[in-house]
Amino acid sequence: MARKRVVIVGGVAGGASCAARLRRLDEDAGIVILERGYYVSFANCGLPYFVGNVIQEESKLLLASPDLFRERFNIEVRLRNEVISIDRQSREVVVREVDSEREYREPYDALVLSPGAAPIRPALPGVDLPGIFTLRSLPDSEDIRDWIDAKKPRRAVVVGGGFIGLEMAENLVHRGMEVTIIDVADQLMPPLDPEMAEYVRRRVAKHAVHVQLSDGVAEFKSSADGGLVVATQSGAAFDAGLVVLSIGVRPESRLARAAGLEIGDRGGIRVDSRMLTSDPYIWAVGDAVEVKNRITGKWEWIPLAGPANRQGRVAADVVCGRNSRFSSVQGTAICGFFGLTAALTGVTEKALRQAGIEDFQAVYLHPAHHAGYYPGAKPIHLKILFRGSDGLLLGAQAVGEEGVERRIDVIAMAIQMGGTVFDLEEAELCYAPQYGSAKDPVNLAGMAAANVMRGDVDLASWRELDATDAFLLDVREVEEFRDGSIDGAVNIPLSKLRARYKELPRGREIWVYCRAGHRSYYACRFLAQNGFQVRNLSGGYRTYRAWQPEERRQLCTR
Amino acid sequence: MARKRVVIVGGVAGGASCAARLRRLDEDAGIVILERGYYVSFANCGLPYFVGNVIQEESKLLLASPDLFRERFNIEVRLRNEVISIDRQSREVVVREVDSEREYREPYDALVLSPGAAPIRPALPGVDLPGIFTLRSLPDSEDIRDWIDAKKPRRAVVVGGGFIGLEMAENLVHRGMEVTIIDVADQLMPPLDPEMAEYVRRRVAKHAVHVQLSDGVAEFKSSADGGLVVATQSGAAFDAGLVVLSIGVRPESRLARAAGLEIGDRGGIRVDSRMLTSDPYIWAVGDAVEVKNRITGKWEWIPLAGPANRQGRVAADVVCGRNSRFSSVQGTAICGFFGLTAALTGVTEKALRQAGIEDFQAVYLHPAHHAGYYPGAKPIHLKILFRGSDGLLLGAQAVGEEGVERRIDVIAMAIQMGGTVFDLEEAELCYAPQYGSAKDPVNLAGMAAANVMRGDVDLASWRELDATDAFLLDVREVEEFRDGSIDGAVNIPLSKLRARYKELPRGREIWVYCRAGHRSYYACRFLAQNGFQVRNLSGGYRTYRAWQPEERRQLCTR
Repeated sequence: MARKRVVIVGGVAGGASCAARLRRLDEDAGIVILERGYYVSFANCGLPYFVGNVIQEESKLLLASPDLFRERFNIEVRLRNEVISIDRQSREVVVREVDSEREYREPYDALVLSPGAAPIRPALPGVDLPGIFTLRSLPDSEDIRDWIDAKKPRRAVVVGGGFIGLEMAENLVHRGMEVTIIDVADQLMPPLDPEMAEYVRRRVAKHAVHVQLSDGVAEFKSSADGGLVVATQSGAAFDAGLVVLSIGVRPESRLARAAGLEIGDRGGIRVDSRMLTSDPYIWAVGDAVEVKNRITGKWEWIPLAGPANRQGRVAADVVCGRNSRFSSVQGTAICGFFGLTAALTGVTEKALRQAGIEDFQAVYLHPAHHAGYYPGAKPIHLKILFRGSDGLLLGAQAVGEEGVERRIDVIAMAIQMGGTVFDLEEAELCYAPQYGSAKDPVNLAGMAAANVMRGDVDLASWRELDATDAFLLDVREVEEFRDGSIDGAVNIPLSKLRARYKELPRGREIWVYCRAGHRSYYACRFLAQNGFQVRNLSGGYRTYRAWQPEERRQLCTR
Repeated sequence: MARKRVVIVGGVAGGASCAARLRRLDEDAGIVILERGYYVSFANCGLPYFVGNVIQEESKLLLASPDLFRERFNIEVRLRNEVISIDRQSREVVVREVDSEREYREPYDALVLSPGAAPIRPALPGVDLPGIFTLRSLPDSEDIRDWIDAKKPRRAVVVGGGFIGLEMAENLVHRGMEVTIIDVADQLMPPLDPEMAEYVRRRVAKHAVHVQLSDGVAEFKSSADGGLVVATQSGAAFDAGLVVLSIGVRPESRLARAAGLEIGDRGGIRVDSRMLTSDPYIWAVGDAVEVKNRITGKWEWIPLAGPANRQGRVAADVVCGRNSRFSSVQGTAICGFFGLTAALTGVTEKALRQAGIEDFQAVYLHPAHHAGYYPGAKPIHLKILFRGSDGLLLGAQAVGEEGVERRIDVIAMAIQMGGTVFDLEEAELCYAPQYGSAKDPVNLAGMAAANVMRGDVDLASWRELDATDAFLLDVREVEEFRDGSIDGAVNIPLSKLRARYKELPRGREIWVYCRAGHRSYYACRFLAQNGFQVRNLSGGYRTYRAWQPEERRQLCTR
């Protein structure tokens, strides 16, 4: 059998994983990585921290050099070699050496596309002025570092409040700048539901970051002092010595599209579970491909490093004749900034509504990340989504200072395995006082949801507060009630409820809340057993405050 | 229907959970908790930290007072009321008021036993001398605190190197003492496999703690200066101003045994999945009952707070006519000391061998807890056990400074769901540089095990090193080899292997190792494809050092 020639286009995450796996499976294959950039296999996700000088040496971000690929794996890496077209008929790619502009053809038996994603640069007036950057590659981050070192900007504007935008904001604050985040959306971190993103907004707003939501950039202008002015659609204007555009990325599917490969609705390359494109000799992996969502079953475009690596392995396996499959993506993601962690897995309420899925329920909790009696316990704001008909887990979101990634990872594993809220209830997790609680936040989430599934309590949503004429009962202690409560709510502390419940109206629905939803659950159980029609306001006063639009508006405009 | 009378014996974890759940399910039931101690619902697991003054206020450990039980839940708590016998015929318990010695009878429709476990106090000469303590209750911890305050001991001996012993050792060091841990076993933390416990021993030995293994206490004596001397069977003697016995606990099944209820082989009360004892009106929960092991299916006695709480809920459900079930325990446990965390879930290799189960494999890894390129990455020493025939996950152990509990929790969830190593390989977990890696330690563990399952590599165990005549190949770099290697190993760095592999012997098995098992895996794949018979020494040189008895012995005797 002839030596198999595999050509890989793009040498980050998916491409590099694929190449290394190919070598392990087939010592004889000829493996070539064609990378148009200056680097192969660099740590994309570390770039904001390199800008922020948290990671100080560029070399740390270079995970593997062309030399290492050659010496260890006998893999040839050609940097600054850009594939400009695919000749599917003759199974060759046309390559341009970026520096010499020389073109040549490289034949393949198998072609693996791993071109990644490109940052979106909106066609706004002034977008090409000096000092306006995007961040996707190592040279991008070098450019921003050089600009900061040379210009020493005091103020920066970050356009886009997603993951990269927030990481950039933190790192620019770390470099001593006052930062403004501008986003057309009415929330930060669009992958989260808005009331969960509200915890993010509050934290960010505390750290020398101004957050301008529901407002888009209209124009970039040069200012008199040599800086920039970012003018928004609402008429606001922000001085900035540095602007970072982090509006998002789009799949680099140009090459695939030009070659006539099937492209999905989201603009990504369409592949099957073998990572095979519509051409039987061409595979595609990583940020350029569309994936099936594990929960909705729909095609989506969710660029994530973990799945990219797995896809690279699957493609290598299939190229070598193995029967591997990539199933789906469940969107597990995490972001940290200013001491806060926000993470999610599965789908959000927003995504469920967009997908037209109505059979779901949500519970909110605010458990401590470890035993409350051990010093340093921090709350985790947690939202769990599950199918109303059978309790199947659909998604989870969490925001907090400690232990967030752990709980989301556990629930991610449960979702992957087709778990239900009953499985969370039963989970046997690590407990010692400095690590967790005998009832871990994951257990508590399972219990709260299982109580709903078993019909022990009905939930009400803060979302519906304005539309209801239910009687609002606050069962917190009198002092808590005095410190802040909801208009129209009547206060009867849980400990007084047995003595005073006859004050409550019969024949009218009663919505009960406390601080976080625990005492109100007891109250609901008591009242239900006494013939009242009750609902628990999930997440209590803490979740109410996250929903409160007034405070949000007030803080946003300062 | 008459008001149901439920009597609960013992008011910590399981008992308190059961009582609160009962009230939520049945507002009319009469619920009485009989507790012979001074406290109800206190935080057992916090006691070592109260001794160490990490938790400074005793009140923090009191999770719920009798007043709170009465006011919120209409539950009667009678402290210092000890149940001395059960009259199953007339369905009454005989209770003694500890202070007045008055006895009375309390009738029940349902009786829930939650008596917990008692510390083992060995019948050794001098064991009742002043200054020798056990630690199980709040008064125990008060006594130790008082002793420390009064005597200001400079040295302490902890007898028993399990979870509580290690937590005590840390807390006594925290109070300024030099500590010796004595254990008859040849390892610390008996729930771990010995080579995993070795990481624990090394850390403990660094922190003013002398570790005396494979040696038991022979006698306690008073010393001339008013202190104690602990004499061991090997002839060693240790001065101590304070001795804490943490040899273990035994189920408090005396009451149940006297009442003729079925007791298991491990001495715990035998219950079915409804937590019902052999008497249809008596339930039992918590540390006093035996449980089914999720993996082996065998009866075991594993006292853990999480399962105790769940059992309390199940018992309450069943008392109220619900169809709830408690399935099994998988032994998830964690312990932290001196900045190190050790945790496990499922079974150990030791337990598998004891249970006569031979169809298993083990992989070792030492991945960083987050991306290596982000500052502060710490290794996690990880061992995964899985069924050889199908890859079913059997157990996991991890030791490290960061991220240990998270990985064990994720694997605990996978085990609970009947997951395989392939599920770990595919897990989609949180990744940002400060939280993890694109290939999380859990993924890497799954990959390493899946490689074995797919026949891509055979493993060798360091355990068998002395018995083999295999050729030992070290594929680390020359400098690493020079810094320390294994007798008889030949060094060919991975990057030179393609040029030099012809130096290797044909027709003789080659065992390959590197630092952690990753490069050696590449070498194995290369060599196997070139017709060599190879095995990968899982975990590499780092795991070898954990197996090395010489160093262990040397350090132990100082």
